[in-house]
Amino acid sequence: MRTPLAERFGIEHAVFGFTPSEHVAAAISRAGGLGVLGCVRFNDPKELDDVLTWMDENTDGKPYGVDIVMPAKIPTEGSQVDLESLIPPEHRAFVDRTLADLGVPALSDDAEHASGVLGWLHSVARSHVDVALGHRISLIANALGSPPRDVIEQAHEKGVPVAALAGAVDHARRHVENGVDIVIAQGYEAGGHTGEIASMVLVPEIVDALGDSAAVLAAGGIGSGRQVAAALALGAGGVWMGSYWLTTAEYKLGSASGEGPSAIQRALLGATSSDTVRSRIYSGKPARLLKTKWTDAWTRPDAPEPLPMPLQNILVSEAHQRIAASEDPDVVAMPVGQIVGRMNEIHPVAEVMDELVTGFREAATRITRYE
Amino acid sequence: MRTPLAERFGIEHAVFGFTPSEHVAAAISRAGGLGVLGCVRFNDPKELDDVLTWMDENTDGKPYGVDIVMPAKIPTEGSQVDLESLIPPEHRAFVDRTLADLGVPALSDDAEHASGVLGWLHSVARSHVDVALGHRISLIANALGSPPRDVIEQAHEKGVPVAALAGAVDHARRHVENGVDIVIAQGYEAGGHTGEIASMVLVPEIVDALGDSAAVLAAGGIGSGRQVAAALALGAGGVWMGSYWLTTAEYKLGSASGEGPSAIQRALLGATSSDTVRSRIYSGKPARLLKTKWTDAWTRPDAPEPLPMPLQNILVSEAHQRIAASEDPDVVAMPVGQIVGRMNEIHPVAEVMDELVTGFREAATRITRYE
Repeated sequence: MRTPLAERFGIEHAVFGFTPSEHVAAAISRAGGLGVLGCVRFNDPKELDDVLTWMDENTDGKPYGVDIVMPAKIPTEGSQVDLESLIPPEHRAFVDRTLADLGVPALSDDAEHASGVLGWLHSVARSHVDVALGHRISLIANALGSPPRDVIEQAHEKGVPVAALAGAVDHARRHVENGVDIVIAQGYEAGGHTGEIASMVLVPEIVDALGDSAAVLAAGGIGSGRQVAAALALGAGGVWMGSYWLTTAEYKLGSASGEGPSAIQRALLGATSSDTVRSRIYSGKPARLLKTKWTDAWTRPDAPEPLPMPLQNILVSEAHQRIAASEDPDVVAMPVGQIVGRMNEIHPVAEVMDELVTGFREAATRITRYE
Repeated sequence: MRTPLAERFGIEHAVFGFTPSEHVAAAISRAGGLGVLGCVRFNDPKELDDVLTWMDENTDGKPYGVDIVMPAKIPTEGSQVDLESLIPPEHRAFVDRTLADLGVPALSDDAEHASGVLGWLHSVARSHVDVALGHRISLIANALGSPPRDVIEQAHEKGVPVAALAGAVDHARRHVENGVDIVIAQGYEAGGHTGEIASMVLVPEIVDALGDSAAVLAAGGIGSGRQVAAALALGAGGVWMGSYWLTTAEYKLGSASGEGPSAIQRALLGATSSDTVRSRIYSGKPARLLKTKWTDAWTRPDAPEPLPMPLQNILVSEAHQRIAASEDPDVVAMPVGQIVGRMNEIHPVAEVMDELVTGFREAATRITRYE
């Protein structure tokens, strides 16, 4: 799947794989795609620096990228304490009551309490950029719209292209005006932050609107070679996959023992394509999540409206930590796309990539026969 | 686009075109696809019979089909009067108030008042089947799930295959168990009745679930040759397109003068892919509609919950008639998919088909180069 965009990045297959796991990201790059490491979980820049050094050493010299989360429109900066004071007590009471109802234990006394995802604040995201540009990265992606112009310029000075997610044509145009090089057209069916327009409509619309001004990756609903073929037929220069890597053998995040599928993986393996919801409860913006007892609780009549970003994530961050520690597949808090219906077995990353390539070839050959 | 399914129907291109207009349906068949005439608007079987005679004479001997609306689970039968009595007065008052607010005039004294879409009652839908089987039809499709088994058997006795829409894998399986020959996988982005799962995920899922037991058509988000290529890459045997024909030159329904684009067409031509909503206000079941002042009104705090099928359509049928007569592009009541964003010019059906074929070939050739 060597599209012009793949050639530009010097990769064998136009598969851009987003994942918070360095083990998965490195395996994607080694398999001929471009592994893109999600940085939002690194509150400490030193920890990110160490992980990127590990990436440098474990990708066989192949290219990889990073994904930061830098919302363009959030004025709230400042310390954790300032932000905590903006969270209404009713919201905290609902979270506490819900966790008790769902049987999620409190954290043990020696657990380090989560302090909210500071990666969503500009100051922290900028430190991620500074750290990442000290490594041999090939892409900076921003999961929440265009990064600030000076960040784009900083990346361009080092020769690193910048990608940004868009759920509608006008977002895509704005990204390109801001200097973004690659637009990730994120369809309704995608996991995480997503708009209302499905990939089948969104991808060609953004491809046509941007013309030669930027490359387009298709995101949302992709987990097989047939879906890669569909995305490229729609005009995308490559695919952006996130959810599908969560059930690879290399994905060990959220697993206490590291042995066998984690509670999150077991929940994903059992879910169908109907088992997701699009909700503001994860971050404050609409994001597609696995449907569980936790997401159901937020649809009850007594549930409060989710708070705006970044307050909602600060509100639920300790809840997420408690839910993860409880390892109950019925009470998972996890972004995932509708492709979860196809995530039914654990496979190593290399096997996933093999199917993408083989399935793509079969689909391309099959439809050519219909000409 | 001569897939095995196209060969089975003896058509040149695997494009199944659903439309309530006999002029459009005949043009689709003449252009090498399969025109499928929507029958729900024919309350009088004689009128349908005459129109199908016209179809027999105006399709150059090429195959065509019909679409009936036969909900499997509606026990409510009986006269219009019985059903009218089940509609709460608050609902009627809201409709009257809303039409007044939106400046939609009452019907003129000589207008024939709509009596609700009786085509949605089994008795009327069965008469449609009886009438249609007296003509040389090649397909009976049901827009609302499996038709009753005896209707399927009646069609099969005449050698006519039966198609049914499905928005999820379990619906598709049930259709095949009931004897349905072709499943139309209708994605979230589609116009009219639609589920939650987008085409990119739904189509391969249904293709894999059914295997050789039934053919699959991809519906939702298709209006260009690239999208046909994507649908066939996903494993569909052909495409089912509905919305896209609404802005063809042959579509004259809802146009008082018959000259130039109608109010509905002008509304569609100006809409983007973000200008649709999925709502129960049209029929009682979730259906994607053009977003207008009419759909907005039903999201206001004072709006009642839509009634179940078929009551909601009986409630709004005179409103639909008044809205159509008012010819105001801002107050349209029209099912349409997200592909409306690509419906920006009026073209004859034959030109649409030419683009589908050319665009398909280009896409197939392009992705083959990436192998």
